[in-house]
Amino acid sequence: MNKILIANRGEIALRIMRSAREMGIKTVAVYSDADRNALHVQYADESVHVGPAASNQSYLVIDKIINAALSTRADAIHPGYGFLSENADFARRVKQAGITLIGPSPESMEMMGDKLSAKAAAKKYNIPLVPGSDGAIADENEAMRIAQEIGFPILIKASAGGGGKGMRVVEKAEELEEQMHRAISEAKSAFGDGSVFIERYVASPRHIEFQVLGDTHGNIVHLFERECSVQRRHQKVIEEAPSAVLTPEIREKMGKCAVDVAKACNYVGAGTVEFILDESLNFYFLEMNTRLQVEHPVTEMVTGLDLVKEQIKISRGETLSFKQEDLKINGHAIELRVYAEDPNNNFLPDIGTLKRYKTPQGPGVRVDDGFEQGMEIPIYYDPMIAKLITHGEDRNEAIDRMIRAIKDYTISGIETTLAFGRFVMKHEAFVSGNFDTHFVKKYFNGKLEEEYVEAEAELAAVIALKALEKARGKSAAQANQQSGYSSWRMRSRL
Amino acid sequence: MNKILIANRGEIALRIMRSAREMGIKTVAVYSDADRNALHVQYADESVHVGPAASNQSYLVIDKIINAALSTRADAIHPGYGFLSENADFARRVKQAGITLIGPSPESMEMMGDKLSAKAAAKKYNIPLVPGSDGAIADENEAMRIAQEIGFPILIKASAGGGGKGMRVVEKAEELEEQMHRAISEAKSAFGDGSVFIERYVASPRHIEFQVLGDTHGNIVHLFERECSVQRRHQKVIEEAPSAVLTPEIREKMGKCAVDVAKACNYVGAGTVEFILDESLNFYFLEMNTRLQVEHPVTEMVTGLDLVKEQIKISRGETLSFKQEDLKINGHAIELRVYAEDPNNNFLPDIGTLKRYKTPQGPGVRVDDGFEQGMEIPIYYDPMIAKLITHGEDRNEAIDRMIRAIKDYTISGIETTLAFGRFVMKHEAFVSGNFDTHFVKKYFNGKLEEEYVEAEAELAAVIALKALEKARGKSAAQANQQSGYSSWRMRSRL
Repeated sequence: MNKILIANRGEIALRIMRSAREMGIKTVAVYSDADRNALHVQYADESVHVGPAASNQSYLVIDKIINAALSTRADAIHPGYGFLSENADFARRVKQAGITLIGPSPESMEMMGDKLSAKAAAKKYNIPLVPGSDGAIADENEAMRIAQEIGFPILIKASAGGGGKGMRVVEKAEELEEQMHRAISEAKSAFGDGSVFIERYVASPRHIEFQVLGDTHGNIVHLFERECSVQRRHQKVIEEAPSAVLTPEIREKMGKCAVDVAKACNYVGAGTVEFILDESLNFYFLEMNTRLQVEHPVTEMVTGLDLVKEQIKISRGETLSFKQEDLKINGHAIELRVYAEDPNNNFLPDIGTLKRYKTPQGPGVRVDDGFEQGMEIPIYYDPMIAKLITHGEDRNEAIDRMIRAIKDYTISGIETTLAFGRFVMKHEAFVSGNFDTHFVKKYFNGKLEEEYVEAEAELAAVIALKALEKARGKSAAQANQQSGYSSWRMRSRL
Repeated sequence: MNKILIANRGEIALRIMRSAREMGIKTVAVYSDADRNALHVQYADESVHVGPAASNQSYLVIDKIINAALSTRADAIHPGYGFLSENADFARRVKQAGITLIGPSPESMEMMGDKLSAKAAAKKYNIPLVPGSDGAIADENEAMRIAQEIGFPILIKASAGGGGKGMRVVEKAEELEEQMHRAISEAKSAFGDGSVFIERYVASPRHIEFQVLGDTHGNIVHLFERECSVQRRHQKVIEEAPSAVLTPEIREKMGKCAVDVAKACNYVGAGTVEFILDESLNFYFLEMNTRLQVEHPVTEMVTGLDLVKEQIKISRGETLSFKQEDLKINGHAIELRVYAEDPNNNFLPDIGTLKRYKTPQGPGVRVDDGFEQGMEIPIYYDPMIAKLITHGEDRNEAIDRMIRAIKDYTISGIETTLAFGRFVMKHEAFVSGNFDTHFVKKYFNGKLEEEYVEAEAELAAVIALKALEKARGKSAAQANQQSGYSSWRMRSRL
């Protein structure tokens, strides 16, 4: 493999290129109008323009991506995450063009892309699924029979559903009939289809996922779990490895199941098997993501492996250089996704220019980003600015380091999730490990208290004082010293 | 411990403050006139001006440092490395002022600071020393007797010597008499003292040092070795952990000796025991450094420990939280000291302004620095700009990552050791692990070939092309693309 085209942008494009460069492989960037000056374009050995800013006219256009690879004679394409990374049609077209796709086969993508076929495959291997009816239920009698089999509380879901419509939690048997009628009528009016099914209701779910790696010689291992329970708008914002609650026994069991799911779809490459974990540490298979995950760095930091290099080696037909028993977890890692979003405004995207931008440093701190000071966060794509990852000897050190790194991270001109990250790191529920996917709903009232934005305010104060002192002819250092004693707090966009 | 004054500057001051911040401890910076706007002053909670730029009027003035600590009510002082870090008098004065010095006792410093008392202490514990006469030799007969005991080649050294004066290598017995006469007469004329002693000549020495940690409860462990054989002007420039040549058996033996040396001086805190290793893997104690070492990050990266935190915990009277058998080496780490020096001009300091400055990122890359773009490297102090550290699964990955990180490191306006680092990383002797402290003398002809400065030239080409294309109204991205094909090479200061 001599040259890889990276069919992506931002931090993940850069991250893939770094590994390629370490392996002596040339890289090709693609870019839209909005990304002409982007860092991934600057970093690549070559770059190809693929169209207007809108991704459905550039990064998502299969023909343009394949033509870019052909015209630059790239012999492989890495799709990153998002965009075309789980598109089986794309995978097929790449193969037809005589190019290697760094990822699983189109067949694996399809089997795991469809929830029903994924669950059917899992069932064959006796992977636990959330107990419930296999499909739509006929009437109240069947509902009651199944409900009593799996135990209350249960969840009634519309077969055609989504977005919570037609969804009902039933606490006890007496409520079943009424709630079922309501669910059916809601489903009918929302989807024109009144069929519903039943699942056990997991009141306090934790999101636990396992990283798997499979080579072309049939070897599949897992690289332990990541916990991604802190989410906003059903989107992960903080991830960690290992999970604070998994015992070695459950880790081994879940890991085995993850490997079995990968086997069920003849998986090749890096993939992620997602589970939910209930209060009693029962786990259930949710789905498999057939690509590199945003949060893969926490796994890299606790295993010492470079997952992109592993992906590339697998694509070259190499055998995994380690067995399951060679792998172990070293310390603890946490990732905070630094989004251009305003936590005080329901995490709405806050697009603009990075007026000041300086990343934290020091032992156990890694920043994967795609921007520099002075750059604009384009409105066309995911508003993630960076991933801030910390590693420590144990979970407490990783948390302390994250708090320190957030304080050392200077971003001005744009609201970000940094201060929200500090809120989570200091929250008793997170620190104790006693939390679930409802963390934000339960504990975040939509407004960050002053203490969490303190760092930013201090920075503003320091800068204001320095300007003041400069005007008065004093040294900046003295100004800084004074600010240490200052109780002046201001909230301003610098 | 609530507040630590850091009696140092630059990267090490920042590095110490980061750990203190993670532990919730406030920090006080000291600064000279030349460092008014330095990053360590900006980072600290408070700062105190301690005098003019010259370090003997600021950072080295014991009274000023202690007064700064007293006036800010700091309850501890961390001396970093260099400056007052191995000054027993300073250690005593700090103690008298009722302040904790984060470091060993003045007695340990004194015992290890004097080469003769250090060797005497080592001898008591049967630590191997370079074989030779215990002191000055009486005549040729004694010289011959000892030489035949230790075996040729031997080294004749002036007792009062230094700088190679009066030093003679004797290959065989027949040459002994003549060479001894020459050494004695050289010593007489150089030092007015003709006394000489004899040591075994180690033709191909490797510099291997062991990191030790001792707490106040008598527990002492070692954190394995660092190899620092790549030196210029007898100063380390590249360090790694572990060494490429140590076997587990020799590592265990040397580690035990290092712990014994620390025991011999009742060592408390972080220290380093230095050895030389000969071609047959015999090792000999050289000296002990009673402070944190510049190259401590490579040990941090392979052990996962934060050495500054360990120092602080020890100073608070805490017991080490691990035993020798708990410690293990994970992967491989290499450090390149990025000096403001011109490798093509005998590594002479090259002071100036950092016109462009951007540090590399990605998995397994750490940069400890003390500067930002636009800052000037002051002429008054050590010209180290940064330490670039890479970690990999194994030595090859650490090397590949270092080559990549050097390429990704943008420094313009000043000559640095970055390109020299690339030269070493690509040199067969370094890659194979077959090198010694004569690496630079043996392999570096004083002039870096074009291929090693390639990255910098490429950068210049890209920037020039972009300016050109901009003038012509084309996009920067297109310009970058073209530069990928360009064979244009220029060597210029940007």
